[in-house]
Amino acid sequence: MSLLYAIELFGVAVFAMAGAIEAARNRFDLFGVLVLAFVSALGGGTLRDLLLDRSPLSWIADTRLAYVALGSGFAMFLLAKFVRIPFRALLYADAVGLAAFTVSGTLIAMNQSMPGLVAVLMGMASGIFGGVIRDIMANEIPLIFRRDVYATASLSGALWIYWSQMFGLNDTASLTSGFILVVLVRFAAIRWQLSLPGFLNTASYRRENHPEDL
Amino acid sequence: MSLLYAIELFGVAVFAMAGAIEAARNRFDLFGVLVLAFVSALGGGTLRDLLLDRSPLSWIADTRLAYVALGSGFAMFLLAKFVRIPFRALLYADAVGLAAFTVSGTLIAMNQSMPGLVAVLMGMASGIFGGVIRDIMANEIPLIFRRDVYATASLSGALWIYWSQMFGLNDTASLTSGFILVVLVRFAAIRWQLSLPGFLNTASYRRENHPEDL
Amino acid sequence: MSLLYAIELFGVAVFAMAGAIEAARNRFDLFGVLVLAFVSALGGGTLRDLLLDRSPLSWIADTRLAYVALGSGFAMFLLAKFVRIPFRALLYADAVGLAAFTVSGTLIAMNQSMPGLVAVLMGMASGIFGGVIRDIMANEIPLIFRRDVYATASLSGALWIYWSQMFGLNDTASLTSGFILVVLVRFAAIRWQLSLPGFLNTASYRRENHPEDL
Repeated sequence: MSLLYAIELFGVAVFAMAGAIEAARNRFDLFGVLVLAFVSALGGGTLRDLLLDRSPLSWIADTRLAYVALGSGFAMFLLAKFVRIPFRALLYADAVGLAAFTVSGTLIAMNQSMPGLVAVLMGMASGIFGGVIRDIMANEIPLIFRRDVYATASLSGALWIYWSQMFGLNDTASLTSGFILVVLVRFAAIRWQLSLPGFLNTASYRRENHPEDL
Repeated sequence: MSLLYAIELFGVAVFAMAGAIEAARNRFDLFGVLVLAFVSALGGGTLRDLLLDRSPLSWIADTRLAYVALGSGFAMFLLAKFVRIPFRALLYADAVGLAAFTVSGTLIAMNQSMPGLVAVLMGMASGIFGGVIRDIMANEIPLIFRRDVYATASLSGALWIYWSQMFGLNDTASLTSGFILVVLVRFAAIRWQLSLPGFLNTASYRRENHPEDL
Repeated sequence: MSLLYAIELFGVAVFAMAGAIEAARNRFDLFGVLVLAFVSALGGGTLRDLLLDRSPLSWIADTRLAYVALGSGFAMFLLAKFVRIPFRALLYADAVGLAAFTVSGTLIAMNQSMPGLVAVLMGMASGIFGGVIRDIMANEIPLIFRRDVYATASLSGALWIYWSQMFGLNDTASLTSGFILVVLVRFAAIRWQLSLPGFLNTASYRRENHPEDL
């Protein structure tokens, strides 16, 4: 369980930094940076806790999580004044955060004896939602909806953890391998720009082709 | 109560398909389609359950709802590869989903002995919020805010159910007539492009006319 | 405690009006106006109640809050047909609402014996979130993220209330002075266009300069 906690702390730090970078790219001020860092880092876990009716929320029960989120965002704010952080670094950091939250979210739901589908969805919601709300707040279409093998990476890890636990793998092995799986899938997706199929005849749906619609 | 359940299932399927179409129009990939289908179909009910502090959430207590949402979204994803679904079909399907969730949301709140205003608001929130979050995720201004008799259709059904139950109409008659009322109002609004009054002097508020504001 | 309630009611009315104005600026219809008024006025408090697992929500326990929100939005809708409300008036009204919700949110969290960080964050969330969701629904980047001393004003009031209560100031004095502090900081920020530091080399992050990034 302390491995789970370490993974969660790590995910919070990485996602907070990713949120801070996104804020910088949109020229937010210091507070915008801290808000986006906080929401990116703790939004997924908050959603998970609300949906599972876990009370108090993880970062209220343990304010260390909130301090880590704010501190990491602030550190990135300072760092970015001196160094330009390449966008690619953000992508890889985000992948590690995605892995961390997918793993912890799935396990938390399983510890509450949730059915498999719910456990997997909670893992994915924890992993993905922070980034989604980060993008919505920055007024962009969440990128995960469009091009990437992103949710798929989270799904594969959540499924792996669910099944490996069902088949009796111990927590440490299951968490570690699930974490590595998400990171590998996501790194591969970034490296080789993998993508999922979209609608085949998607062009026929585009608005510019059908101005009469709407 | 099984009529209520059938209505809810039906609404989930229809809203999931509407979400999938919206995703297609924005060129989301398969996962984006499933996420938008899920959120459109279950977002309104989830908000209702969170606001009323109902636990567990309806789709966690009964995962069939989640499977129907994902299955309908996936079916639409496949279907749309072969057929172009006209936008007008989406509008009518959405109207049926709006009716279904308005009806079930209002009744669920009344079953918890909520005051009339809350019951009506819960019916409307259940009916409308899925579509609102769908549009926000696709980075559009929710259309219901601008042109249509949309919330009004939901309001009329929620008020009807509340009053008809107050006056002793039985559940089946009240649900059925409320459902039909929402569908009729909304179909009429689509067919004849009805709209509510906006601000009369709205033009004077537009930003382009007042660049000094912000 | 009745002072707290008066402050909360006042904040609801002012934020509802600010939401209605924002809706007018985006040419929403009557229902869009009411939805945006409701969400602006009660969204912050709803988030606070959900995060603190307070049930029932404040506006469900006391529907007067909901009626005030809808009534104020409707009044502004009527008023705006005859008078053009200057944007500057909206800014000052919003500042007063921010002060009201910051004060009440912080105190409510303290009354539940939350740790200091959580109490301050709840004050800020109550004060800020209504405006954030208002802006997201109108499809704009929440302005508070970019230019203004906005969250800072809320933070200063929340910190003041937390510390002044810790040091034994009575409720009335603490609430009143905290309220005035937020209003003054925010009025000063509007009047002299104060702003927080952003990323120093922010230009190097802008997308147009790095088209290779995404």
